[in-house]
Amino acid sequence: MIKNVPFERPTAETLEALRGLPSAAVYDALMAEGIVRCFIDGPRTMTPGNPIIGPALTIRYLPTREDLLPKDLEERTTFADFQALELVQPGDVLVFDAGGLAPAAVLGDVFITRLKVRGAVGVVVDGYVRDIQQLRASGLAVYARGCNVIPVTPRVIPAEINVPVQCGGVTILPGDLILTDDDGAVVIPKNLAMTIAEHAREKEELEGFIREQLLANPDMPPGEIYPPRDKTREAYRKAKLSN
Amino acid sequence: MIKNVPFERPTAETLEALRGLPSAAVYDALMAEGIVRCFIDGPRTMTPGNPIIGPALTIRYLPTREDLLPKDLEERTTFADFQALELVQPGDVLVFDAGGLAPAAVLGDVFITRLKVRGAVGVVVDGYVRDIQQLRASGLAVYARGCNVIPVTPRVIPAEINVPVQCGGVTILPGDLILTDDDGAVVIPKNLAMTIAEHAREKEELEGFIREQLLANPDMPPGEIYPPRDKTREAYRKAKLSN
Amino acid sequence: MIKNVPFERPTAETLEALRGLPSAAVYDALMAEGIVRCFIDGPRTMTPGNPIIGPALTIRYLPTREDLLPKDLEERTTFADFQALELVQPGDVLVFDAGGLAPAAVLGDVFITRLKVRGAVGVVVDGYVRDIQQLRASGLAVYARGCNVIPVTPRVIPAEINVPVQCGGVTILPGDLILTDDDGAVVIPKNLAMTIAEHAREKEELEGFIREQLLANPDMPPGEIYPPRDKTREAYRKAKLSN
Amino acid sequence: MIKNVPFERPTAETLEALRGLPSAAVYDALMAEGIVRCFIDGPRTMTPGNPIIGPALTIRYLPTREDLLPKDLEERTTFADFQALELVQPGDVLVFDAGGLAPAAVLGDVFITRLKVRGAVGVVVDGYVRDIQQLRASGLAVYARGCNVIPVTPRVIPAEINVPVQCGGVTILPGDLILTDDDGAVVIPKNLAMTIAEHAREKEELEGFIREQLLANPDMPPGEIYPPRDKTREAYRKAKLSN
Amino acid sequence: MIKNVPFERPTAETLEALRGLPSAAVYDALMAEGIVRCFIDGPRTMTPGNPIIGPALTIRYLPTREDLLPKDLEERTTFADFQALELVQPGDVLVFDAGGLAPAAVLGDVFITRLKVRGAVGVVVDGYVRDIQQLRASGLAVYARGCNVIPVTPRVIPAEINVPVQCGGVTILPGDLILTDDDGAVVIPKNLAMTIAEHAREKEELEGFIREQLLANPDMPPGEIYPPRDKTREAYRKAKLSN
Amino acid sequence: MIKNVPFERPTAETLEALRGLPSAAVYDALMAEGIVRCFIDGPRTMTPGNPIIGPALTIRYLPTREDLLPKDLEERTTFADFQALELVQPGDVLVFDAGGLAPAAVLGDVFITRLKVRGAVGVVVDGYVRDIQQLRASGLAVYARGCNVIPVTPRVIPAEINVPVQCGGVTILPGDLILTDDDGAVVIPKNLAMTIAEHAREKEELEGFIREQLLANPDMPPGEIYPPRDKTREAYRKAKLSN
Repeated sequence: MIKNVPFERPTAETLEALRGLPSAAVYDALMAEGIVRCFIDGPRTMTPGNPIIGPALTIRYLPTREDLLPKDLEERTTFADFQALELVQPGDVLVFDAGGLAPAAVLGDVFITRLKVRGAVGVVVDGYVRDIQQLRASGLAVYARGCNVIPVTPRVIPAEINVPVQCGGVTILPGDLILTDDDGAVVIPKNLAMTIAEHAREKEELEGFIREQLLANPDMPPGEIYPPRDKTREAYRKAKLSN
Repeated sequence: MIKNVPFERPTAETLEALRGLPSAAVYDALMAEGIVRCFIDGPRTMTPGNPIIGPALTIRYLPTREDLLPKDLEERTTFADFQALELVQPGDVLVFDAGGLAPAAVLGDVFITRLKVRGAVGVVVDGYVRDIQQLRASGLAVYARGCNVIPVTPRVIPAEINVPVQCGGVTILPGDLILTDDDGAVVIPKNLAMTIAEHAREKEELEGFIREQLLANPDMPPGEIYPPRDKTREAYRKAKLSN
Repeated sequence: MIKNVPFERPTAETLEALRGLPSAAVYDALMAEGIVRCFIDGPRTMTPGNPIIGPALTIRYLPTREDLLPKDLEERTTFADFQALELVQPGDVLVFDAGGLAPAAVLGDVFITRLKVRGAVGVVVDGYVRDIQQLRASGLAVYARGCNVIPVTPRVIPAEINVPVQCGGVTILPGDLILTDDDGAVVIPKNLAMTIAEHAREKEELEGFIREQLLANPDMPPGEIYPPRDKTREAYRKAKLSN
Repeated sequence: MIKNVPFERPTAETLEALRGLPSAAVYDALMAEGIVRCFIDGPRTMTPGNPIIGPALTIRYLPTREDLLPKDLEERTTFADFQALELVQPGDVLVFDAGGLAPAAVLGDVFITRLKVRGAVGVVVDGYVRDIQQLRASGLAVYARGCNVIPVTPRVIPAEINVPVQCGGVTILPGDLILTDDDGAVVIPKNLAMTIAEHAREKEELEGFIREQLLANPDMPPGEIYPPRDKTREAYRKAKLSN
Repeated sequence: MIKNVPFERPTAETLEALRGLPSAAVYDALMAEGIVRCFIDGPRTMTPGNPIIGPALTIRYLPTREDLLPKDLEERTTFADFQALELVQPGDVLVFDAGGLAPAAVLGDVFITRLKVRGAVGVVVDGYVRDIQQLRASGLAVYARGCNVIPVTPRVIPAEINVPVQCGGVTILPGDLILTDDDGAVVIPKNLAMTIAEHAREKEELEGFIREQLLANPDMPPGEIYPPRDKTREAYRKAKLSN
Repeated sequence: MIKNVPFERPTAETLEALRGLPSAAVYDALMAEGIVRCFIDGPRTMTPGNPIIGPALTIRYLPTREDLLPKDLEERTTFADFQALELVQPGDVLVFDAGGLAPAAVLGDVFITRLKVRGAVGVVVDGYVRDIQQLRASGLAVYARGCNVIPVTPRVIPAEINVPVQCGGVTILPGDLILTDDDGAVVIPKNLAMTIAEHAREKEELEGFIREQLLANPDMPPGEIYPPRDKTREAYRKAKLSN
């Protein structure tokens, strides 16, 4: 039996600091810290208008080899996907490293029902899902490459829980933060979370200021204030003070 | 002139037995019968929320070779696609083996208008369609790889009607049943239709029971009752009796 | 500083002649003139229900090479994308030859804000965009391969303005007309615009007539009047006169 | 049992007229006749230095569906691939429309042994082959997408013989001529064979003359004589006479 | 420091039993045991004519994330690839689960020099290699997707040794047997090695007999003795006795 | 007529400094200077064992649009590809930005004949070539994606000479240096050529020393001296002195 390796989840304070930030602003802040490869490329939202933030609980699949299949349905329930469900804590985001383009739906309504009961907020699947209408109705955020109805085990086998995985070309460690919106999903290394939150929020406010300036001054080319430089920040501070 | 080879259509009883079943449950039932390669991979719904069931009328295209093109527009009307329209009976699903990724829209508003008049319920196109807004307005279910506006004959030629075809990686014989919903489209070999209907409906009810159990018992891991085994069925029978 | 090479924009009359025509009818008219390769394949609408027509202002990107990057943010504002914004005139459509599948979002809310201020009606991006929700809210038509949040310069560099570019496999010259709807985006060489407008409108009316005939006469196979031939046009003229 | 539909094979004279011509010259001659889509794109030579010419005997595969598999090995020997072997006449080229990228090797040493016994000169496989070393030793020309060792029937089923097929994006009718060299494989519609042979041979001689001129006159840009125009042909005739 | 987990290597007897068998015959024997997904699809031989057999020593890479890079070159030497070299025993085959199509060459002449010193017989890389000429000169068998000169760590990070990996779509456990020839590379689960060896050798002899029969009897269609059935085996035994 | 824009070619000294260096060592030296995106990915050698170095003369193609085609063969000879031939100076490498995967052979024996006459040493084609046997016989190095026999203008049009181009995902400016061997082709920005030559040669000598050490000391793990650090360089200097 795979143990519940108790990876460290983020504090409520960290989650609140990140909640509601656009993935674009967060990505820019990660870039500024030198973290470039953190946008999950491939899976995309199947539940638009439902942005989330939460720690990653990871599941790794391997290509099916017939001698590694479960002997019966009873043994099937001991595989990594079933076990992962029971490790979920409220607020978790499940990350499925599920073979990418291999055609198999690793997640359907039964698993989503259980995830809802356990309080997960979303799933990011480098692979496919099924029962898309129930998934949409569940309230969980679902990121995947698409949907089909092909069962898991003829294609991939759930093999490991809470190991480092790749998802959409990005490495994710258990407990890293997953932040999503309609633009996509971004991974925030856990020990950088507060730094990123601050930078992203600053950037977000600054860009709001820039958009306002552009709308208010039809003769101003964006290059005068964008990308944000010292003079942009200066103008922003002045505007803030004068409010 | 290609004859109307009168392939056998399913009985009303068979259609009713399958109508409304989710493609996922039907696929699982097909798997249980040993039929694995029956999910149409590539075409996807362009008219969500419009599930259908009906027998396949097939059209096979070949890559265009200039010496095989029609000599004039009059000859064009004798090609397989025009003829196929007139073979449609109410309830049919047209399956276009139309070159997969070859960029050409084999179906637009004129053909859809005629299909509506003749009572077709949907089309599954291993290729592209055009006039997407009229197609959506038509009430027919449309599965395709996408839309563009590129005419047919510079890319592919309608060549044969009601021969075995491939569509989305699956072999379809004339008269096989096509069942679709938002998860995708599944092919049911015609002589297995009733068996599949029964198994799928059972499975569907059982999964409903499982979801209820999981929602009602937050401490119950899915492995206790899922995947459905003898003990699941036992519990289900008991619950049914006690209602 | 790159000069505002004053490519010729179409007259209001030309724009009105084309406005509202379906991309499918326009493509057919282009085919009839021998112009086959004019459907933009890859980018697709991210703002459905918002068809546009307007002249192309082009931007060409090249793969990033580190020695060609701007030295600082100030220099960044002199690159081709910033300059292109200031060349926009009301009614323009910006065409970004932005590396196709290279993962980078060449356009976000700041640029869209500026484009709105300057009166652009849409963008066609052979690449990706970010801030998809603001883009949708902007009222501009957006065609792209998808969205992500990856910054431009680590992947591609804006290199030239108003040179011939490729976009979705099609060559576009500055001032060519871009016409889009939900089926896709089509390029009309500028000197053919009026010819195409006339042919497409005729075709459109004729197809409307054909659809009416098919709906009114359930026994009429489409081959009798479609594809449109002399006898179709004859019937159409008669019907028109008798109205 | 599928009958030996006796498609017409080319005369010895036709074969001799085409033998030894480069595929490039033949393609150019086909272009001049308006036949553009006749280069087999995908399969490539696995036996370089072994150009062939011969009539196509075609085999069409379909994706495997489990209910269509042979019941036992005895039935397997009645499928289209086994039957096709016995229809081979000396000089034939077998064309396998075998699922393109579907991973399965439709041809190995046993079949090649039989093809050699029956006098085939080559195979063109839109798919994969196995036993590559024996194939190379056999003396037959082999065109395929690559080699692997995966058996046929789990992926594709041999379904029909001597029907029109697609191979590498080109339509091939039984009896069409297949001409190959290290550049690739070209299809010549059977009724155009002699015309193409003449044009290609002329073109070949003319290009030899052009190369000689370019080597002999370092100051002559190719545009003076290439592409061949009236003045090129004039110069060629003069040079021929003066020899 | 990662420990040398002493996975069990095959006995000399097992290796001898398998040595020299064609990958095709071995694959067929694996199929007969129900193991279908064991052909490595993607990597191909870069050193033709050099078949090998040996146990797999595995290395797993993950996509680079900048915060996981080594701090300096000294730390770099502690990563999984350097450690794996020192775990090699004579006869081993190194399997690199190295990101598939991610462009980075995980292996070059320095590593190959060390592998040669330690007695490895080959490498199978789901990725790319560099220094292809030295690799060819080394005498080791090299399977890879191709060659380039792009360094490892900007793209992927060597992360784990001797864990289950995927390579060319196949799951490989440490100690499984890798058998290759010019057709490709096949994985033999270690506990099935002797069974497979026997079946494959039988099959190989039987197919040799079949080929001889076909060559000796021009009137015999392959279906009479192929695929091998009871009557084939009977004929083979008789022929063997009569020798 | 396009003018012979006299881009600066490298001095004989620069060429000699780079000649014979492996592409891998050169790439590593470029990396050390911060230039990462300089490996041409896609085109590969079709003439193995023929490494070259020389300045890039660039040709840019665009997708064919029918209204941009030449009116007759005479006009065809004024297009960019014909003109580029006449700009070639001895030692040049022609770089064709020729549409990547678009199926058309932009180069055949006539052009290669002219290139040989003018003294070019090689061509790098992001696209396809024809007449592969003559190309191999010509002595020029040829890098391309493959060969076919499909003519240029139905697919792409030669549009510009000596502009910045992309080739295999890399930006190349006229006069940049192209260095190739069997591993692939690398671009060296012209103003970095001497720096790169020195670093690469040093690295090359150092790696030779490392390989010798590994072969001479079977107990030495590569991590002791590789990747090269200060202590490696120290050991190398000592060894050099002691010779």
